Amino acid sequence: MIRLNYHLPGTPPATLLPRVDASTGPPTITLIQYDAGSIFEGDFDSFDEMMARFDPAKVNWVNIDGLNDLDLLRRAAGQFHIHPLALEDVLNTTQRPKVEPYDDNIFIVSEMAYFEESRALAFEQVSIFLGEGFLLTFQEEKGRDAFESVRKRLRAGRGFARQRQADYLAYALLDAIVDQFFPILEVLGDGIEEIEEELLDRPSKATLRRLYEAKRLLVQIRRASWPHREIVNALMRDESGRVTAETTVFLRDCYDHITQIIDIVESYRDISAGLMDVYLSSLGFRTNEIMRVLTVVSTFFIPLTFVAGVYGMNFNTGSPYNMPELHWQYGYLFFWGICASVAGVTFFVVKRNKWL
Amino acid sequence: MIRLNYHLPGTPPATLLPRVDASTGPPTITLIQYDAGSIFEGDFDSFDEMMARFDPAKVNWVNIDGLNDLDLLRRAAGQFHIHPLALEDVLNTTQRPKVEPYDDNIFIVSEMAYFEESRALAFEQVSIFLGEGFLLTFQEEKGRDAFESVRKRLRAGRGFARQRQADYLAYALLDAIVDQFFPILEVLGDGIEEIEEELLDRPSKATLRRLYEAKRLLVQIRRASWPHREIVNALMRDESGRVTAETTVFLRDCYDHITQIIDIVESYRDISAGLMDVYLSSLGFRTNEIMRVLTVVSTFFIPLTFVAGVYGMNFNTGSPYNMPELHWQYGYLFFWGICASVAGVTFFVVKRNKWL
Amino acid sequence: MIRLNYHLPGTPPATLLPRVDASTGPPTITLIQYDAGSIFEGDFDSFDEMMARFDPAKVNWVNIDGLNDLDLLRRAAGQFHIHPLALEDVLNTTQRPKVEPYDDNIFIVSEMAYFEESRALAFEQVSIFLGEGFLLTFQEEKGRDAFESVRKRLRAGRGFARQRQADYLAYALLDAIVDQFFPILEVLGDGIEEIEEELLDRPSKATLRRLYEAKRLLVQIRRASWPHREIVNALMRDESGRVTAETTVFLRDCYDHITQIIDIVESYRDISAGLMDVYLSSLGFRTNEIMRVLTVVSTFFIPLTFVAGVYGMNFNTGSPYNMPELHWQYGYLFFWGICASVAGVTFFVVKRNKWL
Amino acid sequence: MIRLNYHLPGTPPATLLPRVDASTGPPTITLIQYDAGSIFEGDFDSFDEMMARFDPAKVNWVNIDGLNDLDLLRRAAGQFHIHPLALEDVLNTTQRPKVEPYDDNIFIVSEMAYFEESRALAFEQVSIFLGEGFLLTFQEEKGRDAFESVRKRLRAGRGFARQRQADYLAYALLDAIVDQFFPILEVLGDGIEEIEEELLDRPSKATLRRLYEAKRLLVQIRRASWPHREIVNALMRDESGRVTAETTVFLRDCYDHITQIIDIVESYRDISAGLMDVYLSSLGFRTNEIMRVLTVVSTFFIPLTFVAGVYGMNFNTGSPYNMPELHWQYGYLFFWGICASVAGVTFFVVKRNKWL
Amino acid sequence: MIRLNYHLPGTPPATLLPRVDASTGPPTITLIQYDAGSIFEGDFDSFDEMMARFDPAKVNWVNIDGLNDLDLLRRAAGQFHIHPLALEDVLNTTQRPKVEPYDDNIFIVSEMAYFEESRALAFEQVSIFLGEGFLLTFQEEKGRDAFESVRKRLRAGRGFARQRQADYLAYALLDAIVDQFFPILEVLGDGIEEIEEELLDRPSKATLRRLYEAKRLLVQIRRASWPHREIVNALMRDESGRVTAETTVFLRDCYDHITQIIDIVESYRDISAGLMDVYLSSLGFRTNEIMRVLTVVSTFFIPLTFVAGVYGMNFNTGSPYNMPELHWQYGYLFFWGICASVAGVTFFVVKRNKWL
Repeated sequence: MIRLNYHLPGTPPATLLPRVDASTGPPTITLIQYDAGSIFEGDFDSFDEMMARFDPAKVNWVNIDGLNDLDLLRRAAGQFHIHPLALEDVLNTTQRPKVEPYDDNIFIVSEMAYFEESRALAFEQVSIFLGEGFLLTFQEEKGRDAFESVRKRLRAGRGFARQRQADYLAYALLDAIVDQFFPILEVLGDGIEEIEEELLDRPSKATLRRLYEAKRLLVQIRRASWPHREIVNALMRDESGRVTAETTVFLRDCYDHITQIIDIVESYRDISAGLMDVYLSSLGFRTNEIMRVLTVVSTFFIPLTFVAGVYGMNFNTGSPYNMPELHWQYGYLFFWGICASVAGVTFFVVKRNKWL
Repeated sequence: MIRLNYHLPGTPPATLLPRVDASTGPPTITLIQYDAGSIFEGDFDSFDEMMARFDPAKVNWVNIDGLNDLDLLRRAAGQFHIHPLALEDVLNTTQRPKVEPYDDNIFIVSEMAYFEESRALAFEQVSIFLGEGFLLTFQEEKGRDAFESVRKRLRAGRGFARQRQADYLAYALLDAIVDQFFPILEVLGDGIEEIEEELLDRPSKATLRRLYEAKRLLVQIRRASWPHREIVNALMRDESGRVTAETTVFLRDCYDHITQIIDIVESYRDISAGLMDVYLSSLGFRTNEIMRVLTVVSTFFIPLTFVAGVYGMNFNTGSPYNMPELHWQYGYLFFWGICASVAGVTFFVVKRNKWL
Repeated sequence: MIRLNYHLPGTPPATLLPRVDASTGPPTITLIQYDAGSIFEGDFDSFDEMMARFDPAKVNWVNIDGLNDLDLLRRAAGQFHIHPLALEDVLNTTQRPKVEPYDDNIFIVSEMAYFEESRALAFEQVSIFLGEGFLLTFQEEKGRDAFESVRKRLRAGRGFARQRQADYLAYALLDAIVDQFFPILEVLGDGIEEIEEELLDRPSKATLRRLYEAKRLLVQIRRASWPHREIVNALMRDESGRVTAETTVFLRDCYDHITQIIDIVESYRDISAGLMDVYLSSLGFRTNEIMRVLTVVSTFFIPLTFVAGVYGMNFNTGSPYNMPELHWQYGYLFFWGICASVAGVTFFVVKRNKWL
Repeated sequence: MIRLNYHLPGTPPATLLPRVDASTGPPTITLIQYDAGSIFEGDFDSFDEMMARFDPAKVNWVNIDGLNDLDLLRRAAGQFHIHPLALEDVLNTTQRPKVEPYDDNIFIVSEMAYFEESRALAFEQVSIFLGEGFLLTFQEEKGRDAFESVRKRLRAGRGFARQRQADYLAYALLDAIVDQFFPILEVLGDGIEEIEEELLDRPSKATLRRLYEAKRLLVQIRRASWPHREIVNALMRDESGRVTAETTVFLRDCYDHITQIIDIVESYRDISAGLMDVYLSSLGFRTNEIMRVLTVVSTFFIPLTFVAGVYGMNFNTGSPYNMPELHWQYGYLFFWGICASVAGVTFFVVKRNKWL
Repeated sequence: MIRLNYHLPGTPPATLLPRVDASTGPPTITLIQYDAGSIFEGDFDSFDEMMARFDPAKVNWVNIDGLNDLDLLRRAAGQFHIHPLALEDVLNTTQRPKVEPYDDNIFIVSEMAYFEESRALAFEQVSIFLGEGFLLTFQEEKGRDAFESVRKRLRAGRGFARQRQADYLAYALLDAIVDQFFPILEVLGDGIEEIEEELLDRPSKATLRRLYEAKRLLVQIRRASWPHREIVNALMRDESGRVTAETTVFLRDCYDHITQIIDIVESYRDISAGLMDVYLSSLGFRTNEIMRVLTVVSTFFIPLTFVAGVYGMNFNTGSPYNMPELHWQYGYLFFWGICASVAGVTFFVVKRNKWL
């Protein structure tokens, strides 16, 4: 339901525990190095090879996919002056998104959301270190990420991307993460609209389950999106000088996006809370309707059945006091007369009370 | 449900994507140019023709209806020093209403609400750039807007309108947008009052649907109205000198209006939340009522039917132990006596428990 | 439900529109003029006559009942330097209560609540202008107001009233308006207590309606009372020098009253929200109870009726396999034995499950 | 429900109205006078006698039980420089607890809670004036108060009490009042725990009433306890010099207590809100259960009764097409065969749908 | 439900009352004394023996398990300059977690949560005094605590622990306490997930009880966890100089953990509130389903039973008007024809209304 990675209570702070997902092979190390005029992109087998290519005069984006190689992490931490507590947070991948300024770099924990094949919503932690001339990112899993579009823009060399420093790159990554929420909200919104139709039309158990799942998704998206507002806000107000004024304008744009996302999430929460009431009301209405039918049918026929039962009795017809009706010439018609009267009265009562 | 226009995640910031509604013909460019003594009003085919008429000594209100001509937008942006990110927001027309001060102008995103023919509530984004001597507005669609009354006042030349600068014009447009919410709330309030009557009188499925729709409208109006308070507040506190002190007094008035609107929206939300409870309670009451009828009818007749069934049995009457009642002279009366007793007891129990 | 007076969207700001309730005759102009030693009180036919009596050396309380004479309003506005936007708010009588400091006076919009004859809660806007040596008040309707007691105190000349300046008079009027809420809350509290008794005892549709109406009243009182806290607070912190330190002590007292009122309103909201739950639960309990009766009666008699039906069948008794029981000497007793067993088992099950 | 003492709207501020509870005899005036070395304690018949004993060099605690002697109140007010508005609040005993600093003293309104014999929660206002060398307290009723323990500590002369000034005494009284809430909350907590057991086990109408009453008690305790936090906080930040630094440490302790009380009240509110849901759910569950029984019994026997009815019909057996089954040798067994089949199918359906 | 230890109202502040749990034997006094190079660990029978070993040049962690020896507490208080009010809070072990700076030390009240064997959640108060060169901790019970891991780290001498001063030790203990919440939340989250499955699948009374208990646990965890955020925050902003800058970095990490915990608690509250709605809806759905079955069965057979009853009547067949159908050759088929028609119509109605 809610991902929870934590150290056993009592583990010393800044302990690095190997991850259980160690089977996914060694991490991938990628370096994208660029300035306005040139770009280099390459995968490396070892951290040292990568560092040999590192050029502090350019922007160096070092991305590490996979967290199961503790040695690599320690080497990277040593090279880029990463605080041990920050490194621990890189590994404990269920952190609440946050920004932590350290002396040598700014540490950003973000959370990337995407739909898995099964349409379940999944989250992946991205840890970003923004330092002088470099941006170091850690991702939990290889493959899928939100950054391909950023890479394409860097390669193409159009737009602002190549002109700017590492802080702009950090913005671009955050923006890509934040914008991921829009299509998710769109899918969710469509789902809620479908649920809405079903609820008002013909509520079923499946509708209830879908509604409940939509509500749970909203809890999750809300947990992931709210802290991003604080992150972007903190970066905009950064006083370390690592975030330049030009990037701040772009961060303001990103802040607007995240505000819009939060706004929509809250509206959806409002709407889906209302839908639960509608479900209950709709069920109550249907139960009431069906009960009316049962009551009307019973009210019509139960008295008639009794009357028919009466004339089916075998009282000795020898005595004149015993069921004389049976001997009347028009007894049968008399019986139907009773039935018609009873039915008529019932009909009148039903109509007056608008039961049907 | 909630309009959502967004760039695919990863699109570079400040990208301008052509709008899919490109089929509605070229945008309309209108210039209203005035000072205290004169007013000029005209439609232009091209941006250049319009600029030829532009006179920085007067107030120039340039309005562009339709967003499907990217070249036009870029030309306007170049001419009026519009920041690329702001221009992107003009096109992505599901922005949350906001104010953004730029060096050369103040950028206001507002949202105009109106009822469509089908009585559905629709929203249209209005983007306003307030600069030195000009006001540039972008609307999504041609035709319908909330500004006709402002134009009339400008033409008539009465009141403050022609005396003042572009900031007053910006206020007047915002005020026109904000005041649009009043008739919408009135219609909504009347609707809620009708729903209220129906609910307490005779709740139906249609009432539930209407109530739910009223609640959803309130969510939408709330989303659109709240940010306007921030907008007007931000304009009142503007420090760029573009909003003059005289206009601030009027903005305070506009602020009061928007506060009143928000206040009413919140009251309606309160009331409609209460109505959902009333619906459920009212249904519960009706179900209870109908169940009481069913129970009373069943409790009266089911035992009687059993008794009638007993005397309809065919036990061999040769044995003196077999159904001697059938041979009694007053057996039939005895039967009715039983019936009367059963009915009497039932009636007493029903009365004591006040089931009817 | 919620009173809504507003200008058509697009009406220029500060427009004065004649009121539709123009039929109630010309407004009444009253002047109460006093200082510590003397008091004058009089009704005037025209504003000019009144102004002839005006004496800036004393406290002049000019009260205008009725808003349908636009000329009068404009004359008053001119005389007392009332801002056009403030004058518009005087006419648009569904303003949210507020304080607005202007250069020449302080403008207070308040809302007076009272029960109409029909026990419906009604509101009337009172607009107060506090200036140098005068207090100008506008009321919507003639006759009924909350100020008679203030007038009596002025006439009697006891207490602080005549000693002080116009700011004290403004306080006295606000205090009278605020204190009006106490008896209203008392009536409401008594009503809620009655509803409470009914709900727990025997919930009916009428109770539901009363509860719902109590909740709506609370929404209205809340809307009217909350802003008064801001008003009194703003007056206490007034920096224009129009509110003297001595009056501030009294305003603090008034602030306490309004805090107490808000506190009670919130408690009542809490309680009435709980009552809706109680209603639903109480209904649920009653439905459950009646269903138990139906189930028990049905469970007792439906099987018995079947058994009686069996022995009413007409199978050819010639065959020894066809209904031999009918020929038994104690067949009838056997039948009653079956009945007693079925009833006994049912009784045992009912008891064990505590259905009755 | 909520005690409401108020002046008729329009009563001049600071008016003293005689209390309707005038029948309880004259007020009791008590003086406790102490310093580190000595203590005097005495009841007085008149205020003057008491004042004759007053010694400004010691701490004088003047307590007046009963508010029905306006002369006494005015004399006390004159002697101790009590502001008329404060004196009014002493009499209007449904004030919200508050602190008001005046020039000559600090005025504290507190509310003492206790269970009456009938286990109803009752409140009594205590008005405290803290001045130079004296503490003046007013209580509504004679007899019961929370201060006996404070008196004992003063008499015993142990602890800090006798060493300190009047501000410490004020703290001690407030602390005694605040601590009264703990046993009340304990009783309430026990009650909620009982309700909880009942609800989950066998919900009845009495449970609903108890739950509702617990909720109402919580509303009352909340109203009384919250403002005490503000009181203690205001005293801790007092700038008049009347509250010494040593007492502030003790007030911080009292502040902790009141925070703890509020915390518990909020938790109980949370829990009891949840219990209402549990009640409704529990009822719903029981109704569902009983309906299942009814449905199963009906579904078993209604078809069988029909079949029995069929073979009870009297069609002329002369025609071979009329009820040939009646003549079959094993007709009766055939009938039971039908019954067994119907019952078997029903049983299967019931099992598959898990209705029982 | 909520632990409540409090002094009888009126007990003087700073009174030490012996605890009722006095039977658990004398308290255990433990000293762990260390610096970077060495560590000593020992249990002592008396406070004096322990003090003989105390060395102010090292870090001394004095831990006292059990609070039933008042003399010991007073001796410790005297030795370490503990304020009497703080000592009282040590004994009254249901304090709200808090930090109180005193002149000689910082007093921290924390609450340790753990699952008892019975899987009930239990809390134990830990009182921590952080002074110059020492850390004094009081625990309610011997044995179980969250600190074993801290002791192991001290003994091992790895990591930061032995390098740092007492403030780091205080952090380490708080961190151990806070981290205890993670496994508790994990167990709770698993429980909620199970409840969720049950609810949507087959809601029972046991599910309701479990859900309610989960909600109550959340109330308790929330009460215990929220104040820890304030504690850590207060320590981070400590101005007494007792908390060093290096420790502050670690406290920030601890602050993140507690924020994450609160965040999860709030999400769980959200989810479990939604589950209660799901329970009610799910029950409503099942009741509706069962009612549909009852209605359909009744609607099919009740009319048929009536028809069968009619032809079971014993009207004198001598009269041609009395039940001629019985004499028709195909009377019986005619009867089944009626039955088929009635059943057909019913089937059609049921289908059209989608009752089954």
